[in-house]
Amino acid sequence: MKIITISREFGSGGRELGKRLADRLGFDYYDSEIISAVAKNSGLDPHYVTSRLEDHGWQNFPVTFRGTLGSSAYMQASKVQLLIEQKKVIEEIAALGKDCVIVGRNADVLLQTYNPFRIFVCAETEAKLRRCRERASGREAFSDKELLRRMKEIDRARAKTREFLSGSEWGDRNAYHLTVNTSDWAIKALVPAVADFASAWFER
Amino acid sequence: MKIITISREFGSGGRELGKRLADRLGFDYYDSEIISAVAKNSGLDPHYVTSRLEDHGWQNFPVTFRGTLGSSAYMQASKVQLLIEQKKVIEEIAALGKDCVIVGRNADVLLQTYNPFRIFVCAETEAKLRRCRERASGREAFSDKELLRRMKEIDRARAKTREFLSGSEWGDRNAYHLTVNTSDWAIKALVPAVADFASAWFER
Repeated sequence: MKIITISREFGSGGRELGKRLADRLGFDYYDSEIISAVAKNSGLDPHYVTSRLEDHGWQNFPVTFRGTLGSSAYMQASKVQLLIEQKKVIEEIAALGKDCVIVGRNADVLLQTYNPFRIFVCAETEAKLRRCRERASGREAFSDKELLRRMKEIDRARAKTREFLSGSEWGDRNAYHLTVNTSDWAIKALVPAVADFASAWFER
Repeated sequence: MKIITISREFGSGGRELGKRLADRLGFDYYDSEIISAVAKNSGLDPHYVTSRLEDHGWQNFPVTFRGTLGSSAYMQASKVQLLIEQKKVIEEIAALGKDCVIVGRNADVLLQTYNPFRIFVCAETEAKLRRCRERASGREAFSDKELLRRMKEIDRARAKTREFLSGSEWGDRNAYHLTVNTSDWAIKALVPAVADFASAWFER
């Protein structure tokens, strides 16, 4: 079984890269939303799912953003419980035995024994702001200042969770097989190269 | 013109990756030794070249290592002059207008205007030690402790020079297009994937 995990900076396009990568390789695809749905269907603590749909003062934020933000707020409330549930769900996904791409949720750490191909996706701040603006276009717009503040908060939460789980630093180049900077690319143009890289790794 | 620059942690196999990448793509190849030879032939300050052949107490170290070590010692003596000379040589190489791979020497910073494809090569400590041991096999062997000390020294010198030149941190994931961790790969197996990645970038 081949597992690709994607960790990413907020706004770097890591989720889009993961989705397109899965499409190209014919792998299953899981991100935060899908994992929470699986959790619900598996009868795992529904608070986990509910919390992610709660209003944390970001009701005007595009729906695609809200999941990520909600989870960070929930973690402050009940971090350990969340992590245990996530772990269960992610292990269940892996136990299906099907090739898959998993975005976020520290799947790279939780599934260490499966030796996944670990990707970290980053981008320069200006490129991340651009991407956030594009995603939000036609909806409620946020100021750059507001976006930057959120970006920092979310990445800090991700870093803290990872350190808690693994002891290794979030974004540490040696914790991933490949670190891809999306600043100068369209994600679409990047996908074949990343897919070939992952394939080479699985065949090595 | 296509330029690929490779920055690397000591022992990560960045030089081998660069050489093989150049072979595969049919690009010219430059590393520290070749750059110093070009400097000499161009009539640039011969002290630069000489210093790199000097004995810094590492006379038993394999020849392939000695260059790198020498340059770090020389930098302490005459950093700015060295950097100016290097800059000249690297700009002359770029002015040839031929596709090339350049390993080290902060070519990514010095050749910014050419918008090179910037690669950073890293590896976990244990993998770097293993690589150093293999390179040194059949010659004078160094203890792991000694190797670790050298590794740290050389990488620290590289980091300092980069910060001095660019203001950006050495190894900062957003200063490179691609960061490749060689820990779990043979360099040879990595080369096609990295070559395709670079090609995709030049064609984007």
